[in-house]
Amino acid sequence: MFLSKLDSLKNAQKLISDNQKVTQTEEISIHDAHRRVLAEDIIAFHDSPPFDKSAMDGFALIAEDTFGAGQSTPKEFKIIDAIGAGDFSSKSVDHNEAIVIATGAPIPDGADAVLMKEYTTTDGDDLTIYSQVTPGENISPKSEDIIKGQKILDRNTFIRYQELGLIASAGYDTVKVFKKPKVKLIITGNELVEPTKAEIDSAKIINSNQFTIKAMVEDCGAVCDVECVGDSFDDVRSAVLKACQDYDVIMTTGGTAVSKGDVVLDVVDDLGEILFHGVAIRPGKPAGAGIVNDKMIFTFSGQPVAAMSQFDMFARKYLFEMQARSFDFQIVKRTSQLKIPSQLGRVDFIRAVSDDEHAKHVLNRGSGIIRSMVEANSYIIIDENDEGYQKNDLVNVVFFNSLLW
Amino acid sequence: MFLSKLDSLKNAQKLISDNQKVTQTEEISIHDAHRRVLAEDIIAFHDSPPFDKSAMDGFALIAEDTFGAGQSTPKEFKIIDAIGAGDFSSKSVDHNEAIVIATGAPIPDGADAVLMKEYTTTDGDDLTIYSQVTPGENISPKSEDIIKGQKILDRNTFIRYQELGLIASAGYDTVKVFKKPKVKLIITGNELVEPTKAEIDSAKIINSNQFTIKAMVEDCGAVCDVECVGDSFDDVRSAVLKACQDYDVIMTTGGTAVSKGDVVLDVVDDLGEILFHGVAIRPGKPAGAGIVNDKMIFTFSGQPVAAMSQFDMFARKYLFEMQARSFDFQIVKRTSQLKIPSQLGRVDFIRAVSDDEHAKHVLNRGSGIIRSMVEANSYIIIDENDEGYQKNDLVNVVFFNSLLW
Repeated sequence: MFLSKLDSLKNAQKLISDNQKVTQTEEISIHDAHRRVLAEDIIAFHDSPPFDKSAMDGFALIAEDTFGAGQSTPKEFKIIDAIGAGDFSSKSVDHNEAIVIATGAPIPDGADAVLMKEYTTTDGDDLTIYSQVTPGENISPKSEDIIKGQKILDRNTFIRYQELGLIASAGYDTVKVFKKPKVKLIITGNELVEPTKAEIDSAKIINSNQFTIKAMVEDCGAVCDVECVGDSFDDVRSAVLKACQDYDVIMTTGGTAVSKGDVVLDVVDDLGEILFHGVAIRPGKPAGAGIVNDKMIFTFSGQPVAAMSQFDMFARKYLFEMQARSFDFQIVKRTSQLKIPSQLGRVDFIRAVSDDEHAKHVLNRGSGIIRSMVEANSYIIIDENDEGYQKNDLVNVVFFNSLLW
Repeated sequence: MFLSKLDSLKNAQKLISDNQKVTQTEEISIHDAHRRVLAEDIIAFHDSPPFDKSAMDGFALIAEDTFGAGQSTPKEFKIIDAIGAGDFSSKSVDHNEAIVIATGAPIPDGADAVLMKEYTTTDGDDLTIYSQVTPGENISPKSEDIIKGQKILDRNTFIRYQELGLIASAGYDTVKVFKKPKVKLIITGNELVEPTKAEIDSAKIINSNQFTIKAMVEDCGAVCDVECVGDSFDDVRSAVLKACQDYDVIMTTGGTAVSKGDVVLDVVDDLGEILFHGVAIRPGKPAGAGIVNDKMIFTFSGQPVAAMSQFDMFARKYLFEMQARSFDFQIVKRTSQLKIPSQLGRVDFIRAVSDDEHAKHVLNRGSGIIRSMVEANSYIIIDENDEGYQKNDLVNVVFFNSLLW
């Protein structure tokens, strides 16, 4: 009768943390590295830009020669060469000379500024300028972005599109990252059937957790295979044992309480160690976790909303940190638009619609009501020491979007 | 000399909006529908739950019979059957009778409540209860989540994990969604080389835009193929023409200004229509867009930060709305921790590090400095009518995360 002694959320989360694993690393192509996590420091192999580079299309010249030029006081230059991107000029710019230069091309010797084409007119080799520039103007100096040999990104950095560009610029065609965790999701329940538009047998229910939990796993940068088994001890046991061989993490739904047909925790107890079972939270009280053959197993409720909340409370951080990506609930303060009752001694995760100022909880809180998650974009979290909030109180809010990979 | 007459950001964005397209729809498996956009209303084929369902493991009984039961005033019942999940009982519960029931199992006839197992003891068929329940307690009533025949999700809804579960529960094994836009990214530039740890030829630069822009396209739910071509008019022209046949959208980087080797806008002008070229924004002034063979073509700068900002300003909304997903900058107000100068008549997108209260812009603003995007998590947007802000002024902030698919 595990549920009679509930763990605190903090204690349950600590038991998971204490058993945190990190995946192995692998070397992959830079083409595949978007949204992965670095498993090495990035040390630049090149300066970027590799030379003083023109930031504009225009004319490379000596800034001093342009001083005083204006719409009514034009100055004359002689064009001695032209440099396209990818080319360089063998010529050197002397006073009152100019070289046509494209964005991205190297600044020729002698020149110290680029005048934009808009402020000039040309007639053959004759250039007339109508504006002045200062030394260095429109030049991206060598290594202003990256200095060769410097560390530009730390191991454990999440690779967004901008990090990806920086890594490429530093010369990396391959990069070492943490492997994606392989998750086996075992759905238990004799009552479950696949989605169908046709009539469903009595006592049967459509299996929606296989979709929601798999999608949540994918939202954590991991991969997920699903297996559906009945509520028999032997079936669940052999599914868990097999999953331990091929997967990094096991998750189950259903069979977490203590009646006829609820067998998941019995299997964990038989094969390994139960870390906790039953947590003072709502929804999701029957949450459990354990270790089987050195693999973490999360046992979620069959009730869809309970399962999603349990995933958020326990599995998300574990999957992030398996890939060495730090994870914490980003809690922000919002004004509650309604009174929210809660019970001392229990942490409530209340589905809410929040914006940059307010939070309003979804009234229909049943742990089987998926619509309550569909209407929501956030949780209001009510701590175990709080008895709820009055209207207009500041409450702790976590946006679902802030939980994503 | 397009750049001499700059469009306003608003006008440029309107020109793109006026040419917005939406992809065709396709019917896909519910297994593949996560993070797609619905192209049909979802009308429930089933009630969910399909019957009055037990929300707990315990005993189905008549609530009235439990009234007055407590730790020191136990009451006695006779157990007449047991129902596992997926089963149902042919028996009906009469006064002072109980049926063992698992979470998810249908409530038997006669019973109107479930008493949790924790509050009972049993001895064979004899049940002793130590707590009372109210009618309906621990029962998830039929159709509390979904009512058969009702519309539960609208066309154009983005399918997060929770919507996915709801769609499955409604009986959909396949679902109609908008196709992913196919984007061809054409990288122009004779100066560009692939990432390499080896020495790079003089005047050459590593091609990082192919990675950043492709990753940004993927962050908009679209797919992207990349082709790198030189700066020749003919090469760019044939790459664009070919892309028009096989792709929904074309994007280019480089060749957007008006000097030797800058040919992209000439190609657009030759093959179709330039919508705009040159916008009063910073970074990203040379931004352009056009229509070729009825396909939108975005012409981004070669400068990496300019290209990323142009993508955010112009392409992101277009790709979202191609899939019928609404997109708007989610602008929030934050306190600027530094003074920010800006120029009237131009919209500035300033890279910044922001949190739930403050915004602090990254000081190094060069449009080639990828590190400035790496350090940032947000833009401070300064409107064309603003001359900048003082320290502690409230400024408009857009978080990069809020721009993601």
